[in-house]
Amino acid sequence: MNSTPPDVHRSGPGPFDRLAEQASLRRRAGLRRELRPRGADSPLVDLAGNDYLGLTRHPEVTRAGADACLRWGGGSTGSRLVTGSTALHAELEAELADFTGAEAALVFASGYAANLAAVTALSGAGTLLVSDAANHASLIDGCRLSRAATEVVPHADPEAARKVLSGHRGPALAVSDSVFSVDGDAAPLAELAAVCREFGAGLLVDDAHGFGVLGEGGRGALNAAGLAGAPDVVCTATLSKSLGAQGGVVLGPAVVVEHLVNAARTFIFDTGLAPAAAGAALAALRVLRREPERAGRARTVARAFHTGLTAAGLDATAPDACVVSVRAPSPEDAVAWAARCRDEGLAVGCFRPPSVPDGVSRLRLTARCDLTDAEIDAAVGVIVRTAPQG
Amino acid sequence: MNSTPPDVHRSGPGPFDRLAEQASLRRRAGLRRELRPRGADSPLVDLAGNDYLGLTRHPEVTRAGADACLRWGGGSTGSRLVTGSTALHAELEAELADFTGAEAALVFASGYAANLAAVTALSGAGTLLVSDAANHASLIDGCRLSRAATEVVPHADPEAARKVLSGHRGPALAVSDSVFSVDGDAAPLAELAAVCREFGAGLLVDDAHGFGVLGEGGRGALNAAGLAGAPDVVCTATLSKSLGAQGGVVLGPAVVVEHLVNAARTFIFDTGLAPAAAGAALAALRVLRREPERAGRARTVARAFHTGLTAAGLDATAPDACVVSVRAPSPEDAVAWAARCRDEGLAVGCFRPPSVPDGVSRLRLTARCDLTDAEIDAAVGVIVRTAPQG
Ligand SMILES: Cc1ncc(COP(=O)(O)O)c(C=O)c1O
Ligand SMILES: Cc1ncc(COP(=O)(O)O)c(C=O)c1O
Repeated sequence: MNSTPPDVHRSGPGPFDRLAEQASLRRRAGLRRELRPRGADSPLVDLAGNDYLGLTRHPEVTRAGADACLRWGGGSTGSRLVTGSTALHAELEAELADFTGAEAALVFASGYAANLAAVTALSGAGTLLVSDAANHASLIDGCRLSRAATEVVPHADPEAARKVLSGHRGPALAVSDSVFSVDGDAAPLAELAAVCREFGAGLLVDDAHGFGVLGEGGRGALNAAGLAGAPDVVCTATLSKSLGAQGGVVLGPAVVVEHLVNAARTFIFDTGLAPAAAGAALAALRVLRREPERAGRARTVARAFHTGLTAAGLDATAPDACVVSVRAPSPEDAVAWAARCRDEGLAVGCFRPPSVPDGVSRLRLTARCDLTDAEIDAAVGVIVRTAPQG
Repeated sequence: MNSTPPDVHRSGPGPFDRLAEQASLRRRAGLRRELRPRGADSPLVDLAGNDYLGLTRHPEVTRAGADACLRWGGGSTGSRLVTGSTALHAELEAELADFTGAEAALVFASGYAANLAAVTALSGAGTLLVSDAANHASLIDGCRLSRAATEVVPHADPEAARKVLSGHRGPALAVSDSVFSVDGDAAPLAELAAVCREFGAGLLVDDAHGFGVLGEGGRGALNAAGLAGAPDVVCTATLSKSLGAQGGVVLGPAVVVEHLVNAARTFIFDTGLAPAAAGAALAALRVLRREPERAGRARTVARAFHTGLTAAGLDATAPDACVVSVRAPSPEDAVAWAARCRDEGLAVGCFRPPSVPDGVSRLRLTARCDLTDAEIDAAVGVIVRTAPQG
């Protein structure tokens, strides 16, 4: 059925041969990553995903996603500027803006695309980007793509940002995760915003891990920091974590959203978010509004993990949202530890170089609001029991 | 319900004030873009989307997307390397590789992300990128992100690529759309591949607009050019056009796919494709395999548009796949022409600066295999009747 591979007349080595060498180096260093597809009814307790509010399989969410697919089609068929904007996208955008207190919202095919869009489109000629050293890959890629001058500042250090901003004339944009994806600590947003205001700089916050969890009823990190609706702050979030779907959103002043519609390449030249994802995210948002206690419960679960693990002598980070990271002595130890957890029925994340910029390997645990106290105790028991010795 | 916007103590102008000036400049120049959300049951005949095979609302496709959402959840819950790989993703990848004759396949959250991944991960230290001047924004952004030396070569000109490659020592990767998204013309892939082989360079082809339409039964541009399964060629495609869903895929040697799993940032640090989109795309692929005549019919429809429009004296490009572009005298004429078409029940794309690198405004029409001859005649009639005078 496939056409046979063509006759290749080549003298030298193939262009991708060196990738095989790199692969064997990785394998020997124990750093090879492999995909491990899961089944639909995995028996594992999931402490590895980002479904913080337990909504991705909520019947209202899956029903709404399915109905959107049946009603609108399997895809949006084009760029949001051509055929890819449906009334469903508009409804989702209006409700996200209303919920977070932003003037306007714009939905993207992914959180990654939303971050690329916001960073590149808000850093015009002469703009200085001031980027936290622990920012997510998508913000870093946004800085690279923008080709704007970028100062990487020490992690969670508003004074460092002040120093850089005070030495700069012209437009500037500070860029930070709200909750850092590896260690789960929160950025000092109120302080950072104050520093930005001193110098007339904009602030862009990636609330991927704060939206749905922080703030009043999960309204996010800007709400928690008293920055919701601020004219000089832009927020991005993803629909793939607390909202259990796929997609991203930029929340901010209407003038920013209008600018993105007209200038952001990952908005203009990308197909719009699939209707099923928009429908699922909208349904999840409505469940959260009706049951705002989910946000607080998710944070409580995270703190319970931290308390249990540190009481047993493990080196776990204090969670500001739903992410708890637990240090491992080495990459090999981390991999083996995660495998032992899996053998005992627990899926945990395992971060090791080069995914972690600091080179420190760790387990990454995520809290879900729908875990019971008994499940939390059992999970902590497994992690402690399987911990590397020494 | 929203927290009130904070008190902003600022002396100077706001950081986003200049965006309002840019917006009014755009408005005055007639270049402002606005979102126009469509309803689920739009009465317009769609010649603007990229649903070339008429599959996005095919009952098997929407049913499969809905079922995947109900069975697997509204989202994939994490990176493909953590919790985001389901058995459904693996099934889709195996079937895409089998269909196209590639050794392996890797699915992404969008075609944009697939292109960023392929260009950046395949351009290691010292690699020269040779990029067609009319390439899609996602390939261009990939070149920028890679920070590799990039030579932009004249459009569809293998001799220009040869000249650049002959002057370079070290690894090189030529990058090209298979079918260019604005004018719908095909790249000279066989010639380009021959040039690449002469110099041991790799070739990366973005088959977004060829997959499902070109080659035997829609197997794509590599199949059509006799390059399927070649060890020195990598193909990307999107699941959002012919397959009527959302997502992207990289198709190529297994060593390339293994490399992407380990090195591509938009794979590692992005949430996996939502199950509904994976399920819809897989169902669409199966319809295409069962009804391979859809591919040829889509091309026939495109040629019928071209024949009808040029017979009436309009300046339309000869389509190599499903995209036909028709020149307009000016941006204002193009906008007004598209609006008149819409008034007569026809949705057409309208490309104008800055979306078109050559500054030439045009209508962009797309063919669908499910248009009848009567619908084609009627559509051509509307476009001709509403054309700008002079
Ligand atoms: C902090 C942060 N920002 C952005 C993203 C990208 O969002 P998405 O995966 O929905 O594209 C992620 C996770 O993937 C993230 O952890
Ligand atoms: C040539 C080309 N490549 C890549 C893409 C990106 O694919 P997607 O929209 O599925 O992300 C598009 C269209 O959007 C395209 O036209």
